[in-house]
Amino acid sequence: MRILLINPNSTSSMTAQIGANARRVAFAGTVIEAVNTEGTPASIEGHADEALAVPAMLDLIRAGETRGIDAYVIACFDDPGLAAAREVAHGPVVGICQAGVQVASTIANRFSIVTTLPRSVPIIENLVAAYGASARCRNVRSVNMPVLALEQDPETSEARLIHEIRAAREQDGAEAVLLGCAGMSDLCARLEARTGMPVIDGVSAAIKLAEGLVGGGYRTSKIGSYDFPRKKELSEV
Amino acid sequence: MRILLINPNSTSSMTAQIGANARRVAFAGTVIEAVNTEGTPASIEGHADEALAVPAMLDLIRAGETRGIDAYVIACFDDPGLAAAREVAHGPVVGICQAGVQVASTIANRFSIVTTLPRSVPIIENLVAAYGASARCRNVRSVNMPVLALEQDPETSEARLIHEIRAAREQDGAEAVLLGCAGMSDLCARLEARTGMPVIDGVSAAIKLAEGLVGGGYRTSKIGSYDFPRKKELSEV
Amino acid sequence: MRILLINPNSTSSMTAQIGANARRVAFAGTVIEAVNTEGTPASIEGHADEALAVPAMLDLIRAGETRGIDAYVIACFDDPGLAAAREVAHGPVVGICQAGVQVASTIANRFSIVTTLPRSVPIIENLVAAYGASARCRNVRSVNMPVLALEQDPETSEARLIHEIRAAREQDGAEAVLLGCAGMSDLCARLEARTGMPVIDGVSAAIKLAEGLVGGGYRTSKIGSYDFPRKKELSEV
Amino acid sequence: MRILLINPNSTSSMTAQIGANARRVAFAGTVIEAVNTEGTPASIEGHADEALAVPAMLDLIRAGETRGIDAYVIACFDDPGLAAAREVAHGPVVGICQAGVQVASTIANRFSIVTTLPRSVPIIENLVAAYGASARCRNVRSVNMPVLALEQDPETSEARLIHEIRAAREQDGAEAVLLGCAGMSDLCARLEARTGMPVIDGVSAAIKLAEGLVGGGYRTSKIGSYDFPRKKELSEV
Amino acid sequence: MRILLINPNSTSSMTAQIGANARRVAFAGTVIEAVNTEGTPASIEGHADEALAVPAMLDLIRAGETRGIDAYVIACFDDPGLAAAREVAHGPVVGICQAGVQVASTIANRFSIVTTLPRSVPIIENLVAAYGASARCRNVRSVNMPVLALEQDPETSEARLIHEIRAAREQDGAEAVLLGCAGMSDLCARLEARTGMPVIDGVSAAIKLAEGLVGGGYRTSKIGSYDFPRKKELSEV
Amino acid sequence: MRILLINPNSTSSMTAQIGANARRVAFAGTVIEAVNTEGTPASIEGHADEALAVPAMLDLIRAGETRGIDAYVIACFDDPGLAAAREVAHGPVVGICQAGVQVASTIANRFSIVTTLPRSVPIIENLVAAYGASARCRNVRSVNMPVLALEQDPETSEARLIHEIRAAREQDGAEAVLLGCAGMSDLCARLEARTGMPVIDGVSAAIKLAEGLVGGGYRTSKIGSYDFPRKKELSEV
Repeated sequence: MRILLINPNSTSSMTAQIGANARRVAFAGTVIEAVNTEGTPASIEGHADEALAVPAMLDLIRAGETRGIDAYVIACFDDPGLAAAREVAHGPVVGICQAGVQVASTIANRFSIVTTLPRSVPIIENLVAAYGASARCRNVRSVNMPVLALEQDPETSEARLIHEIRAAREQDGAEAVLLGCAGMSDLCARLEARTGMPVIDGVSAAIKLAEGLVGGGYRTSKIGSYDFPRKKELSEV
Repeated sequence: MRILLINPNSTSSMTAQIGANARRVAFAGTVIEAVNTEGTPASIEGHADEALAVPAMLDLIRAGETRGIDAYVIACFDDPGLAAAREVAHGPVVGICQAGVQVASTIANRFSIVTTLPRSVPIIENLVAAYGASARCRNVRSVNMPVLALEQDPETSEARLIHEIRAAREQDGAEAVLLGCAGMSDLCARLEARTGMPVIDGVSAAIKLAEGLVGGGYRTSKIGSYDFPRKKELSEV
Repeated sequence: MRILLINPNSTSSMTAQIGANARRVAFAGTVIEAVNTEGTPASIEGHADEALAVPAMLDLIRAGETRGIDAYVIACFDDPGLAAAREVAHGPVVGICQAGVQVASTIANRFSIVTTLPRSVPIIENLVAAYGASARCRNVRSVNMPVLALEQDPETSEARLIHEIRAAREQDGAEAVLLGCAGMSDLCARLEARTGMPVIDGVSAAIKLAEGLVGGGYRTSKIGSYDFPRKKELSEV
Repeated sequence: MRILLINPNSTSSMTAQIGANARRVAFAGTVIEAVNTEGTPASIEGHADEALAVPAMLDLIRAGETRGIDAYVIACFDDPGLAAAREVAHGPVVGICQAGVQVASTIANRFSIVTTLPRSVPIIENLVAAYGASARCRNVRSVNMPVLALEQDPETSEARLIHEIRAAREQDGAEAVLLGCAGMSDLCARLEARTGMPVIDGVSAAIKLAEGLVGGGYRTSKIGSYDFPRKKELSEV
Repeated sequence: MRILLINPNSTSSMTAQIGANARRVAFAGTVIEAVNTEGTPASIEGHADEALAVPAMLDLIRAGETRGIDAYVIACFDDPGLAAAREVAHGPVVGICQAGVQVASTIANRFSIVTTLPRSVPIIENLVAAYGASARCRNVRSVNMPVLALEQDPETSEARLIHEIRAAREQDGAEAVLLGCAGMSDLCARLEARTGMPVIDGVSAAIKLAEGLVGGGYRTSKIGSYDFPRKKELSEV
Repeated sequence: MRILLINPNSTSSMTAQIGANARRVAFAGTVIEAVNTEGTPASIEGHADEALAVPAMLDLIRAGETRGIDAYVIACFDDPGLAAAREVAHGPVVGICQAGVQVASTIANRFSIVTTLPRSVPIIENLVAAYGASARCRNVRSVNMPVLALEQDPETSEARLIHEIRAAREQDGAEAVLLGCAGMSDLCARLEARTGMPVIDGVSAAIKLAEGLVGGGYRTSKIGSYDFPRKKELSEV
């Protein structure tokens, strides 16, 4: 099966990292194509960044439809354009926040999320509420670092993540922690080892769910709100 | 005061209609600039249409910032890109769904919404939930007509809207009805006259709230999640 | 247009202060009549105080109906008798809590409220829940001072309010603060200047919304639960 | 033990009926004093009627406090002034809607409510939501008759109630029905006999809970929001 | 009337304690039979302990049905098997968590719960949510002691409970505290005396509600989900 | 990987059917062991049936732990004993309701569920609420047939299921349908073919999620409420 793993931002080093981590958890028969959008923000930190990334992401999905992609994973924790992507695709589309929340809700009764910047906290809280997990999600924490700083300063990232994961356990009563940024995938195993907490990377979670959805023969429903977009003229600019 | 009234789709006849209705309710001192995006879908009927319209809409807001616009109204009932727009603007940004829900929640205890296509029903239900009005909103109904058919076939539109408004009163127990598409603004007064129900047009509601927000000196908070987007490179395409 | 601004308590100095602040934000053509009830508690601090104030408030509205009042604002943050008032009035009736919550939900993603006494905290929390804003309202804080002490000891009031506003920003992640008592209107501009936080006064918010509702031609729906009270005999005492 | 059963409206025939039904379910040692307010609406059908009844009801409670009343029951299904009453009383105060909802939630998984006029439906829905029972309460139905018509036309009342109770079972999936007006107490046993459904009268439910609360030594908490009203001057009229 | 008070765990000293406390609050005419299951865990601390206790508890109820038991109280704060018990019994079945929450919601606007082990916190939070009381319940606290340690080390228990009750008042804004374990019944009066807070023991609350339900003639609805289990073969082991 | 697929009831023909369907969707390397409890009800139709089945189910899991089972699937749509099972197991435990809801929430915006008997409707509604999917789940329908009748009368089952699936689409606005009983697995493909609706079988969904969880290295968190049961004496019977 072929999964298109889309990094909606335009930072190719991050795409490479995410792709490598995705392949590590994929089943042997799964082909992971990791791509990113172009002409879009270098990182997604807020609603406007999301909005600028989505059209290019939809183009990648449209192109994927022509060459037999079975499922799509959107590798940004804001799940930008998730519903729009489902309209465009035949196969399932998995967002890393929704996938991470589903895994966390299966292996733990209560969990916390740790993301990058404080401004993303309400965005993620709203997503968690829309996914019906507000009662299970104890807290959305932030390490107060921009997305790209995770790569540039891995030591500080790790130290702050460990600090927040421990606080999630001790102060929030979290039983697991969900990493709130695709750029943290790389650190997941180390964080789990160093804190003794189950730590969930949304990218890995999404890959495993996407494989399962394809393997189970599930496709996006084309009845109702995820139906293909209606054909219409785009006006000339 | 100057309000930029943005029709996120690219159909200029609809922009003209919306603009005319907005001016009818505006205070004497209010200047309404009605504009629409270009290179975007001719109507917004689903999440993908929304996604394609938002970047052009943000450009219109950025341009508005340079020429002293005081407030922005997004004239599509899905409130596409509302949070992103708030990040970009200094002044208040009002979505016609949120505004309509606020007015409906002030003049009635229970209301229903009537929109165009069935596929928009869950989108609007999700918005209403996010605005905390699920308990007040009895039902989201549809006339099962595309957005542009409202203009092209006004008689059928009116007949079906009257049918749904009466059903909202009799079957839902609605005390007022909120029109779920900017393209219905024109019909609002006639619908109210013919049904005896309070009928709320989101565009008018949004204009009045925007005037009030500007008049009261309110501006979008730049602390936290509506802060201006962080400066970042857009990659070359 | 004429707006009747009702202070439900019987403290005329507070009425004067509220009226002055209301006039400061009103449009030029708006006439603000500021009145208070008589024979009622000097301040409203709990459900019993509310209950004693409402009948006199309804009398003021009934009298207003006979002399062409266009809209009513109830200037107590508990929104006492709001639904009852809507039954009695033809025009819109705006409560300062509901109005403040609507403005806060438009200019910020998350906000906190600061009120007077701790006993009012659950009352306000329940109101916020009824208005569907529990997810947006981070916290309801109190300065632990009675309503009338705000006037009598403005220095302490201001100091404590500044303290709570800063805590709302730092501890709650609030992006704006809503003042939880009409008696705080006077301080709003100073608090905003001194803290750098958007601070919302419910009285001003309500005036602006009331102007907009009247300007937009909105009246309270008389279909269903806000219909005029049914005529009935009041028994002799 | 002595329970003051307060009919907040001024119709003494209704008070007599309610009192008789209350005594039928009370334990042998319980003294039920059934009283009604005076100078108040003859029936409570909407928020304004509630508001006019509450001050007189609080006076009855204050008087009760001076002569050793152990608990209070408010015999109107809107639970008017319930929180205010709790502030004024030392002992527990039970509203018939809250009590009925508690009993219904104990003996059934899902229930419906049948009330008098359609205008009361949203009032009751809001109460049920505030009591946290929205998921258990399938529907709030109305027989479309004023409160006093229940007495004046018992045959029509009974026929319509039976019709709605059967509809609650067949259409709503209700497992029990809660009568949504104190004026229906008289009919409870007959309705249960004729429909085979468990039918709950809020007055009886409230008496039994009040007896239990007094017997268990429970009193209204005076810490926080149900503390006695703060002493304050009532202004001269 | 006869109430079967079931301690679902197998520790008979705890049964004796619970029974004694229940009899202290019961009306003179009430016969309390206090029993416990056998062959079951010595205490219930988690979902698996619950699951092992329930079949034996249902056997006790089935036996009770044959000898005229009027109502059942399940004396474990997790309310284990409550819905199953309602299917098996004709009369009402009261869980001590649900009963405690109902009493707390009547005498206070906001309350906290104090339980034994941290692992029980999410179980109780989920129960409180299912009972619709999440908005009223400020916090679920734990003394971090196993159930049986309450008996074995009453001094430490009392000290830690007092500490948590005071924290509930000061930090949570609780107006009453609900004891989150049947094993704490014994301490209720002392805790109330020493902290000045209303403290509610679920066992006492449940006994009083059960008496009221029986006295009011209420029985478990056999229409719908609490109907008697369908007759079916149990397979041979 | 080895997955233990547990049918909690004691009907081995149903176990065989479920097992066969599970193997059809499993990846090549997955070993599915399908087992059922013994000495337990022949079908699970209500809370009491659930309660009787769970202890034997926990025994099967404990035995599984000793022979290297990687994950468990509980093949009854009530998800009986799911939390208890998670306490007992190291690996992930998946319930078919939770899994079905997760898949439905990924491929559709709105779905309905069709189950067997009406008495199961509130049980499933409560589960759906606990999983946070009440807003997405339009309706829980029933074919009004006992579980074992699905096997005994497949023609009627199929006809009624088709009827309900069509009603879910037309009346509920469902975009997909989730089958609300493990005994319906066999019919899933035919129902999808005949109705044109996406139809989700919870057993298949759970198998695919379980494979993904094992493949991703996820195990049940042992921090907090899913920790292993505390060691304790079981009393002698």
